[in-house]
This record gives sequence, C-alpha cells and structure tokens, in this order.
Amino acid sequence: MTRQDQPSTGRDATHWLAVADEVARTLAADAVQRERANEQPLREVALLREAGLLALLVPAEAGGAGHQWPLAHQVLRRIAAADASVGHLLGYHWFQLWRTRLFDQPELTARLERHTARDRLFWAGVSNPRDTALTLTPSKHGWRVTGRKSFATGASVADRLVVSGTEDTSGRKLTFVLDAQTPGIHYLGDWDNLGQRLSASGGVEFRDVHVHPADVLGTQPEEDDGAAHRQSLAPLGFQLLLSQLHVALAHGALTTAAGYTTEHTRAWAASGVDRAVDDPHVLAGYGTLTARVEAAACLVDAAAEAFDAAAAAGQALDAEARGRAALRISQAKVVSTEVVNTVTTEVFALTGARATANRYGLDRFWRNARTITLHDPVTYKAAEIGRHLLTGAFPPVTGYS
Amino acid sequence: MTRQDQPSTGRDATHWLAVADEVARTLAADAVQRERANEQPLREVALLREAGLLALLVPAEAGGAGHQWPLAHQVLRRIAAADASVGHLLGYHWFQLWRTRLFDQPELTARLERHTARDRLFWAGVSNPRDTALTLTPSKHGWRVTGRKSFATGASVADRLVVSGTEDTSGRKLTFVLDAQTPGIHYLGDWDNLGQRLSASGGVEFRDVHVHPADVLGTQPEEDDGAAHRQSLAPLGFQLLLSQLHVALAHGALTTAAGYTTEHTRAWAASGVDRAVDDPHVLAGYGTLTARVEAAACLVDAAAEAFDAAAAAGQALDAEARGRAALRISQAKVVSTEVVNTVTTEVFALTGARATANRYGLDRFWRNARTITLHDPVTYKAAEIGRHLLTGAFPPVTGYS
Amino acid sequence: MTRQDQPSTGRDATHWLAVADEVARTLAADAVQRERANEQPLREVALLREAGLLALLVPAEAGGAGHQWPLAHQVLRRIAAADASVGHLLGYHWFQLWRTRLFDQPELTARLERHTARDRLFWAGVSNPRDTALTLTPSKHGWRVTGRKSFATGASVADRLVVSGTEDTSGRKLTFVLDAQTPGIHYLGDWDNLGQRLSASGGVEFRDVHVHPADVLGTQPEEDDGAAHRQSLAPLGFQLLLSQLHVALAHGALTTAAGYTTEHTRAWAASGVDRAVDDPHVLAGYGTLTARVEAAACLVDAAAEAFDAAAAAGQALDAEARGRAALRISQAKVVSTEVVNTVTTEVFALTGARATANRYGLDRFWRNARTITLHDPVTYKAAEIGRHLLTGAFPPVTGYS
Amino acid sequence: MTRQDQPSTGRDATHWLAVADEVARTLAADAVQRERANEQPLREVALLREAGLLALLVPAEAGGAGHQWPLAHQVLRRIAAADASVGHLLGYHWFQLWRTRLFDQPELTARLERHTARDRLFWAGVSNPRDTALTLTPSKHGWRVTGRKSFATGASVADRLVVSGTEDTSGRKLTFVLDAQTPGIHYLGDWDNLGQRLSASGGVEFRDVHVHPADVLGTQPEEDDGAAHRQSLAPLGFQLLLSQLHVALAHGALTTAAGYTTEHTRAWAASGVDRAVDDPHVLAGYGTLTARVEAAACLVDAAAEAFDAAAAAGQALDAEARGRAALRISQAKVVSTEVVNTVTTEVFALTGARATANRYGLDRFWRNARTITLHDPVTYKAAEIGRHLLTGAFPPVTGYS
Repeated sequence: MTRQDQPSTGRDATHWLAVADEVARTLAADAVQRERANEQPLREVALLREAGLLALLVPAEAGGAGHQWPLAHQVLRRIAAADASVGHLLGYHWFQLWRTRLFDQPELTARLERHTARDRLFWAGVSNPRDTALTLTPSKHGWRVTGRKSFATGASVADRLVVSGTEDTSGRKLTFVLDAQTPGIHYLGDWDNLGQRLSASGGVEFRDVHVHPADVLGTQPEEDDGAAHRQSLAPLGFQLLLSQLHVALAHGALTTAAGYTTEHTRAWAASGVDRAVDDPHVLAGYGTLTARVEAAACLVDAAAEAFDAAAAAGQALDAEARGRAALRISQAKVVSTEVVNTVTTEVFALTGARATANRYGLDRFWRNARTITLHDPVTYKAAEIGRHLLTGAFPPVTGYS
Repeated sequence: MTRQDQPSTGRDATHWLAVADEVARTLAADAVQRERANEQPLREVALLREAGLLALLVPAEAGGAGHQWPLAHQVLRRIAAADASVGHLLGYHWFQLWRTRLFDQPELTARLERHTARDRLFWAGVSNPRDTALTLTPSKHGWRVTGRKSFATGASVADRLVVSGTEDTSGRKLTFVLDAQTPGIHYLGDWDNLGQRLSASGGVEFRDVHVHPADVLGTQPEEDDGAAHRQSLAPLGFQLLLSQLHVALAHGALTTAAGYTTEHTRAWAASGVDRAVDDPHVLAGYGTLTARVEAAACLVDAAAEAFDAAAAAGQALDAEARGRAALRISQAKVVSTEVVNTVTTEVFALTGARATANRYGLDRFWRNARTITLHDPVTYKAAEIGRHLLTGAFPPVTGYS
Repeated sequence: MTRQDQPSTGRDATHWLAVADEVARTLAADAVQRERANEQPLREVALLREAGLLALLVPAEAGGAGHQWPLAHQVLRRIAAADASVGHLLGYHWFQLWRTRLFDQPELTARLERHTARDRLFWAGVSNPRDTALTLTPSKHGWRVTGRKSFATGASVADRLVVSGTEDTSGRKLTFVLDAQTPGIHYLGDWDNLGQRLSASGGVEFRDVHVHPADVLGTQPEEDDGAAHRQSLAPLGFQLLLSQLHVALAHGALTTAAGYTTEHTRAWAASGVDRAVDDPHVLAGYGTLTARVEAAACLVDAAAEAFDAAAAAGQALDAEARGRAALRISQAKVVSTEVVNTVTTEVFALTGARATANRYGLDRFWRNARTITLHDPVTYKAAEIGRHLLTGAFPPVTGYS
Repeated sequence: MTRQDQPSTGRDATHWLAVADEVARTLAADAVQRERANEQPLREVALLREAGLLALLVPAEAGGAGHQWPLAHQVLRRIAAADASVGHLLGYHWFQLWRTRLFDQPELTARLERHTARDRLFWAGVSNPRDTALTLTPSKHGWRVTGRKSFATGASVADRLVVSGTEDTSGRKLTFVLDAQTPGIHYLGDWDNLGQRLSASGGVEFRDVHVHPADVLGTQPEEDDGAAHRQSLAPLGFQLLLSQLHVALAHGALTTAAGYTTEHTRAWAASGVDRAVDDPHVLAGYGTLTARVEAAACLVDAAAEAFDAAAAAGQALDAEARGRAALRISQAKVVSTEVVNTVTTEVFALTGARATANRYGLDRFWRNARTITLHDPVTYKAAEIGRHLLTGAFPPVTGYS
C-alpha cells in the first residue's frame, strides 16, 4: 500500500471502491496464513488506516472523505469477502463513531470526527448486552468505571472506545468515550474461537478507569421520549452490519471455491465430461448457491436503505418507521444466516476432496460464518417478523433488536 | 367495479396501485369458488379491462396510461397474490404488446397500441418453443399458417395474438399479429391442470389462417446482428414475469395463511400458550418464511431493473449487457421457485389441520406454484448461473433463456 | 376380486402380500377418478373385506388370519402407496380392534374378534382429543352418550365403533364399543378436505345413544397404575400408523412419478441427452428422494419394532420402555413428515410441466401428505425428542403422545 | 487401559461393547487436544491394540475374538462418535483384513488372520482408484512395485498393507500384502487437511518394493466370472464404512452439543424461559436433528445387513444381489452425507455463541464430516439410485461403486 499520504477528502466513490479492491487483494493474498498465525490484527488495522478508509464516513468539513453508508457498505462487502475479520473490525469502527451522532451532541461528535480524521483513529465498542453492566461511580471529576465485558470486537487494537455502563447511584445508563489506552483498561486476550479469529473480540476489564464528563455521549432515554427511537437505532445498525458480513462471507466462499474448481478440480469419471466445470451438478450447484447469495445480498441492500431512511428521519423517527427498519434488518439476518451457513458448507461438494487440504484454508469461510452468525439467536429475529405478520406488533427495543 | 368509464391517461401511480388493490380484493373474494368452477376467465379479463389496466403501458400519446414496467410489476404483484391465474394473464398481456417494440417497427407498434387503448384489447401469445413450429405458406396476399401449439396462455380469451411460425419456403422464422377471432383458429380447451386453472393455457390449432403482410412484426435476426440481442429480450421478459408470479403467489399464501392462523387456529396444548399467535414455532415459522419471500422479492426487483436497463439500451444492447440481465433473471427464477414451493407447503404447518378444509382453498397457492414453476426446468437456469461464475460464459439465447 | 370366499385362516405371509399387491393394483387403477368423485368409501371397504384383510390380525382361534403387526405393516405400506385414504381406513380399522386388548378383558376382546372374523366387520373410532369430550350419563341399563366429535376417520362406513366419553357423574373417562348403526348416531358428512378425501373422516354426533355395560372396554387408569402405561400405548399406535402412511405416500409418489418420467417426459434441450431418464439432474433427483424415503422407511420399521416390543411387555411395561417406544415413534413422525412433504412436491421437478395435467392426478400425493401430516403439529414431537436428549425426560402421556 | 493382557477369544458382545465405551471415553477425554497436536496416531492405534479390538473379526480358531460385522459396526459407531479419525482407522483395518477372504485363498487368509491375532497387527490399504496405478514388474522372486498413491488412510501407522498394482507385462491388476516396513516404502506425511486429521491419510511412495508370490491375494477377475461379483464387494464395503462414520460423527456432534447446552448455555432473554433446555426452539431443534440422525442410522444398519447377506452368498452372489446391496449402500451414503453435514453445522445454533471457543473444539465434528463426506461425490451415488428406479439398472462396478 502506498496510498498512505493521500488525503481522504475529495475522492469519489470510484476511488474508494478501487481502494477496497486493493485492500481486499492484499488481505486475500495471505488470509490463510494470517488466520492460522492468529495474532492481534494490528497489521490489518494499519492497512485500513493507511488506505484512508477509517475516515470514509467523516464529513469533509471535519477532514474526512465525506461519504455515506451506501458506499461504506460496498467497501465493506468487498473487504469482508477477502477477510471477514477485517470487515468486522472496519464495519464496527465506522458504526461506533457514526452512532455518536444519535446522542445529538453535534459539537462532541464533530470533535470526535475531527480527531479521527486527523489522527486516523480506529474505534471499537465495549457493550455486550448479555454481561452484567459496567459500574459507574461518580467521582470528583466525573466517574470511575469498573467491571468486565466479553466479546468487545476490536477493542484491544483500538484508539478510542465507546463504552456503556450504569451509574450506581442513580441506575442511569450512560454511554461515553474513552481513550483505549486509559490506565485501568485491561484487554484480556481471551478470544480464541473457531472463526473471526482476527477480529480481536476478547474481553475487557475496567479497574477504576476515569471517565471525563466531556466524554459522555448521553444517557439512555425514557421509552416514550422522542430520542428513544433514535438512540435505539444503534442495535439495529450492528445487526445490519452482521448481515452484511454474512453476505460478504458467502461471496468470498463462492468465488474462492469457484476459483479452486476452475483451477484444480478434476472431472469425476462417472460424469462423462472432461472438465469439472462442465459437470452438470457442479454447474447447477454453483448456480443455485449464487442465486441464493444474490437474493440475500439484495435483501441486505434493502435493509441498509431502510436503516438509512430511519437514520435520516432524525428526531422525527417514530415507532412505526423504526419498527419497519427493524423488520427489514431482521429479515436480512434470517436469510443471510441461512445462506452463509449453507454456502460455506456446500461449496466443498463442488470443489471435491482435495480442497480440504489446509493450505487452501477453504474452511475459514464456514468457521467465520458459523461464529459470526451466532452473535444472537436468529430464531428470535424470525419470531419478530412472524409476530408482526400475525399481530402487527413491531420488534421491542433491546440490545439485539 | 365502477371505474369503467374513466380514462386511463393522466392517472398517477397512486391511482393504479389503488386500482390494483381493488381488483385484488374483488378477485380474492371468490377466488376459491372461481377456481373450483374452472370456467374460461372471461369475467376476469373483463375485470381487468374495466379497471383500465390493459393499457397501463400504452404511451399517453396512443391513448394509454403511459406508465412503465416498474409500476406494472407492482400492480402485477398485488393482483397475482390474490389470483395468480389472473396475474398470469395480465402480465403476459402487457408483455405480448410491449414486445412488439423489439421489432423496431414504431408505426406498427403505435397502431397496435392505439387500438389496444381505444378498444381495450386483451393480448396473448402462441409460441411454445418445445412444440413443432407453425408452418407459414406464402399465399397471394400474405401467408397461410397451419399447425398446433400447446400451452398458449390467455389465447382463448384474447382479442389479439402474437404468433410465431416458420416459412416453409425459406425456413425464416416470422412473428406476426392476428385477430384472435380470425377464421381457422381453433382453441382446443384442453387446459385441465392442477394449478393456474383460470389462466386459459390450452392449445391452439391453426388451419389455413390468413396472415396479412402488414401484421408481420419481423423475422428472427441472424445471431450477430445488432437486432439479435434486442429481440432476444423476449424470452427473458417471460422468465421475469414468471418469477414475479412466484413471489406474488408466495405473498398471497403467507398473508392468507396468516389471516387464517390469526382468526381460526387454536393454540396447541403442549405449547403452553393460550393463542396460536403466541406459539414460538408459529412465530418463528411465519418469520422465516416471510424473510425468504422478501429476499426473493428483492431479487426479482433487481432482475426487473436489469431487464429495464437492457430494454432501454435499444439497439446498443450488447451480448454482455444482455447476458447480465439474463443472469439476474435466472437468479430470480431459481430463488423464487424454491421459495414459492416451500412457502406454499409450509404454511399449512402454521395453520394446522382444519385449514385443509376445501372451503378455505389454501392449497390453491401450492397448486398454482407447482404448476407455474414447471414452465421450464429451473435446474438449467441454475446451470447458466454456475457456468458464468466458473467460465464467464453468458446464457445462450434460446426460447427459454 | 374373486378371493371373496376364501377363508382367512391358514394363509401365510406370501399369500397376504400377494393380496395386498392385488388390492393395491385395483385401487391404483382408478385412484384418480375415485378421488375426484369423492364418494363415501363403501366400495373401498368392500374391497378390503372381500380380500379377507379385515381379520388379518384376528387370532386363528377366533377365526382370523392369525398374523401379527409386522405383516400388517407390510400390507399397509403397499395398499397405502396406491391409495392412502384406504390405507388410512385399513390401518385404523386394525388398530381400533387390536387396542381393545389393552383393556385386559380377554373375553370381551375375544368376542369382538370372533364377530369381526365371522361377519367381516369394519372398525373405526371416535375420539378426537381436541374436541370437548362426549358425555356419558348413567341410565337404567348402562349409559346414554351425547355430544359431537370431529375427524372420526372411517366411522361413517364402519360396522363397529370404539368411542370414548366422560361420565358426567364421576368424571371418569370410559371407552366402549358401539354398533355403528345404533340409533342416535349421526354422521355429519362434513369431510371435504384437500387430501385423504376417501378416508371418511367426517364428524359424528351422538344424541342419547345407548351404551350397554357389556360393551365397556374400561376406564382410563390412574397415572401410576400398572395399566396406565399399557393403555397409553393407544396414542402411540395411531402415531405410528400415521408415519407408516407418510412413508407409503412417499413411495407411491416416487414410483408413480418415475413411471411418468420413464413413459412421458421428454429430455430437456439443454440437457444434451436424448432421454429424460439420462438427464443427470433427473437421475440424481430421483436418487436423492428415494434415499430419503428409504431412511424414513427404515426408521418407521424400527419404530414399529419398538411398539411391538412395548406391546409384548404386557402389564410389565414400565415408564422407560413406554418412553423409549414413544421416542422412536416421534422420531419416525418427524422424519416421515419432512420426507413426504418434500417428495410429493419435488417429484414434479422430475416429471416436468405436462405431468400437472389433472388426468394424471399426481398432486393427490401432496394433498394427501399435506393433510395427514397435520394430524398434530410435528414440531411438538420434535420437542419431545429434544427434551429427552437434553434432560432424559420421556414424553408425557397425552392423546397425541 | 489395563486390558492389555486379556485374551480376545471367548468374550461376548457385552464385553466388546463395554470395551468400545471405555475406548470411546478415553478418546473423548482429550480428543480436542490430540486433534490440535495433529501427530501421527500411534498412541491411538496402540489403544485399539491394547483393547484387543484389532482381532475382533478374526475367527476364534485363528486366535481372534471370533465376532461378526454387526458387532463390529456397533463398536465402530461408539468409537467413531468419540474420535472419527480413530474410527476411520479401525474400520478400515478390519475391512482390509476381512476383504482378503474375497480372493478365496482360505489358507492365505488364515495365515494373515493368525498373525494378526498373535502379533496384534494393524492393517491399512493403498489403493486410491483415482491415482495412476502402481506398476508391478516381474522379477526373479516375484515382483518389484513402483509408484505413488495418495490418501492411504492408516498406512503410515500400519503393520501390514493391502496394495493393488498393475503388472506392466500383462496389464493384469494384482492385489497383494506387504509388511508396512518393507524397504522402499516411503510415507509422505502429506496429510494436512481440515478434518479426519488423525487418520494418517497421507500418500505412499513405492520404490522397487519387493512383492513375494506367496503374498499375492489374486488378480482382478474378468467381468463375467463368478468371482467378479464377489471381489467387487470391496468398494461397497468401504462405502458402507464411510456411511457408518457419518452416522457416528452425527451422533458425536449431537451428544457433545447437547452436553454443552445442558451445562453451559444460558437461556435467551426473549425466550421467556429460565433455562436453555426449556427453550422451545432448542428442544425442537435437537429433536429434529436427532430424528434425522436416527433415520440415517437405521438406513446404515439396513445397508450393513444387505452387505452381510451379499458377503454370505459367497460365489453364489449374482449381479442382482450385488446390485441390491450396492443400492442400499448408496442410499445410506446419500442420507448420511446430508445428515452429518447438516447436524454438525446446526448444533451450534443450539449451543449459542460461546460454544465457538476453541477449547470446546465443537467444530471438529463439522471438519471431520466435511472431509470424510467428500471421499467421492455423493451426487453420483444418488444418480445410481435414480437410474435403478427409472430403468432397473444396477450400479456399475468401479472403485467407488
């Protein structure tokens, strides 16, 4: 990568898609080796940083590239097809910074965005809803935060963190920003899972970490407050990103497997053809899988549009508009989960036995898919959709919906 | 329907979607009874005619509503969800008239469109590619056409027919227009199939039927002629319409079944809930099916956009652009076929046993789906997609691709 | 059929399988027409009667054929493949008579068996667990029974009925036998459903129908009584029969479709082969479906063995042995339900479009399957199996498990 | 293991099933660690040896345990559920020795069996049909064999090898036995694949390896020779073993996952239950998967019976009996392949995200399944079954059928 010095601002979509393709090629070249080495994804984040991608969604006036989510989704799909861990890091980075806007503190957001563009900061979050909440204890100059959270994707390689916790005196839930190197933050390094291995998704422990009042984004609003719908877009945004990663993984598996079949697979004797690419079952097999992936991709696109529309509504967002976006995103989750788990298993039937050699690393797509699709149980997304069809009710607002 | 006298011209999309909804409601009200009666769909075509829908795509200057395919697809999806046979008739009608444009005889097309708007004509085609071709014998004032074709959807209730045949002296394949009442045309009335029963898809026999030179749309072009790609959009258009009908059928099955579950289904004792709509399996079941249908719908939408783009290219359409549209349409066919056959079977597991009573007619969705999805074997659509992924080749131009 | 006069006693399994095949051929010959005519299955029951099949399980000493369930299941599978309604009637007939043994009144059972053999009686039951129970009011010479039950397969064409009701004075649940022509029994003729049309599964109304004390089989035992497990085999037996019908239907659909493909289907142009039976997708398609059906068949066989073992245990049957049989039967239900609904839909993709003509009636397999598989929701069978795997608990005793 | 000194002879089935369970427990205890260490399975073979299992099928008169295949299959299923690589080694070991009987040289077989029992020998084979055949060059005292074969499961840890090659002078195909340590045999150690990692399935190179005439089992017979059918049982036996491993893997995945769910999985908030084992979707999910695995297991049992019957026919085995066994085995392959790939993926949806931690190693079931199910493409097994249904033809005799 030699794009290090270029300014982000002023480049058009074509530029960024070319950057995405270049990053994807770089990542694909040694994806198998890097995954096996299983090191902290410092080089990977550096690659994104040097490519100028970290500030893609930062407004031009804050020194960023000034682009919107539709382009970011395209970039994400390309990069995540090559390395879903890196896609995971990038998507979450963008979203953690972007979601500071939901707190309607434009000056704070502007400051965070300026710093991100200037110092090419990488963001991550610490907020797994299933863990006990972090405790915020009021102190002289703010708060001290204590506790432990698991599955904090990207945190251990981040510059800035978005963190949530509960004030012990009031029970209020606050969301705030921290420098990732603040004393008292300990990265547990306990992410050793079968997939998304380079996503740095280990736990984080906070021991009396100081939070400054100026870094507080806001408190969780009351349910019938206008801000409630708006802030409740955050879990939807993460759900949408997961579906995008599913589709990218499925694309990556398909194209990698197809490349293998074309290059290596020998025709089976009983097929009566000379080349594997003329085997009727290979052709129909790839075609069926491709069609399913494309359907999932179109649905994720539609979900992304629904999310953008909801976000664009600002404070005017109401329960129904929020609900319709949530349903679209749940649909995308259901279909993309099913598709990616199927595709990443089925491609092997189209490559043949020798593609199971570890040097091809074709199983990483399944391992990544199987890991990421378990973020939260998809059957409860399906239930949300079914309930709406049957009763008209919209999904409740939770950490996952 | 009391919209009989209204002019089509000048009404906007909102109007036509309301018309579609009204027609759909009318059709749904006695869909079960009409299907069982299994009569020629004369009343159904009259309904479409009176609603002003036949000229939806006829340009305003020719007296039509002047709308484009995107709106037509929306109308079609609503009407076909209520009655897929009628959707079949309407979609094919629109396309038979529209595809006359592909022959680049603007005056002829303009005449046909004017007459269609003025006389509210209903169109159908006679061209099943698997049958032996009709024979055209040159005569003093044109040709005489002889032969027999099966599966001519809508022909027996049409005003005008688009017909293809082979000139016996030259081997050229000609496409021409006929008044459906021309002497010598015999409708065989042999459509007695398990689904799409009201689609009037019986055979047609031609016995020395006169074809006037002024009604000849054109001859099939040579393969590397510029017109070849353009005329070859016709089979793609039919394929696209089939996928649209699949999605509409799936929607119709889902909403009809959901209505039944809400109104009639009793909670199963072992579920531990009081209402069927609170049964976790019912909720997740409907949600999963809905998500799959929505994915198929989004893919069909994308295919329709690809088709429109290809059509808009006019003579500039090249093999690659044609090929990309063909692949998108094949993807839509593969996914929508799978989805509609699954959904129309699976909804019964969510309604329970009593929904099998014939008075509910819930099986008509499966019977329609099972019939229409067999138009041509979907596995060969999948093979086209797979071949492109593996070798870059585009689908060949045939009567089905 | 000319076997009318032959005695049942003394014939071996070979004989009865040949009879089954002959009955199956007779039924298959006009299955499509009979189903469409939708008359009461009087001729069908007469066919079974004349073939001597009604007393197959009646002991030789009572004048029956003296065979056991394994042979009955083989006979059933052959007949139900040809006509699943008739299989339904026959299986339920056998089981209604056989289950009188579970009440341990050997003399009463012997009398019923003797009469069945002598008069070639046809049995059915009236006991849908989801309806309100019939009311038994003690009278001078027994009881008077009042109420209404739905879905009483075979009752309207039966000679004898096994009926259950609740004594209004005591709340005891009694099971008893009735002559099907007893005054006050009204057959509602309300079975008009999409499948199993000839199974005579309409409702029955009882208006002050006299029950004689000598015809009472017994009362439902207390839960921890030894007889409880034994009598609780009845719902398992019905569940097992349903799975057997599923497998038979799947076999029938496969062989009927394969016959059609061999005889009628034309090779698709894009297949590159001359005969449909050489199309790789047709071959693999039929093979995959066949393999799945055979797996289901083997599991149903295993379930039948488990049931026979439980039945053979007599009063020694304990909760675990009963539970293991129940689990096996639930497994069979889960798999056979999935398989038969899939197979009866998928065969059409292997026959092609023209097989949807109503004269072939190939949809009757799907309609029968879709109807019979809804007897009770299969997902709760799956839950029983899952609960056992996770917790070791056996299925509860209910009207369906 | 302390069973080292016990004689195999004279122990009954109960003994061997207890041994199997003990070996399975031992293997399961560190299966995850051993798989990750990825060493040659020397300790694993030693475990089988010390348990006395190697001579299970050796006749008592030759010093073996004197048991038959039905018991061996039960033992195999238990051991392979714990460690499918070891099951692979054990099954192939048994079969390589057993298949020497097919050459009808009872004295040679008796000698091999005696030595196996006496010296507790471990057997493997070298015969991948897709590679170029090994070359046998006649020499003064037999032959010299040269060439290279891949995928020789177990060879590198074996005592004896069954090898096939083609005589360069005559073109005859000979099968012979070799001491695995014979000079000139080189084990390539090139098995580094995603699953079945401890199955020692690397390649073997032969450089002028001496073959003694007394160790030649026989030549491949002419097609219409009586011995042809008999020797052609060998590929069927391997296919059967693969299906047995599939079923064992599926069992292993299910019970391991169920153990995890019971012990570790937390109820999902939206489920409304306190324990994951009460979640309706978890219950139905495990139940559905269990039912499918049981169906596959029953079909594999039926296939094993068919194989045993064919083997028992000896020289009387004809094409039809061979064909029927082949079809049963192909059915088992089709269903077990589908089931094991589904189950090993789907269990994760029932354990939840934390089960993806590498310390649980739950992905090894999928990796093993995905690897072993690719032995040869299952779609061509399906095609064999379909062809028989449509045309009555039996599968051809090949290295895979």
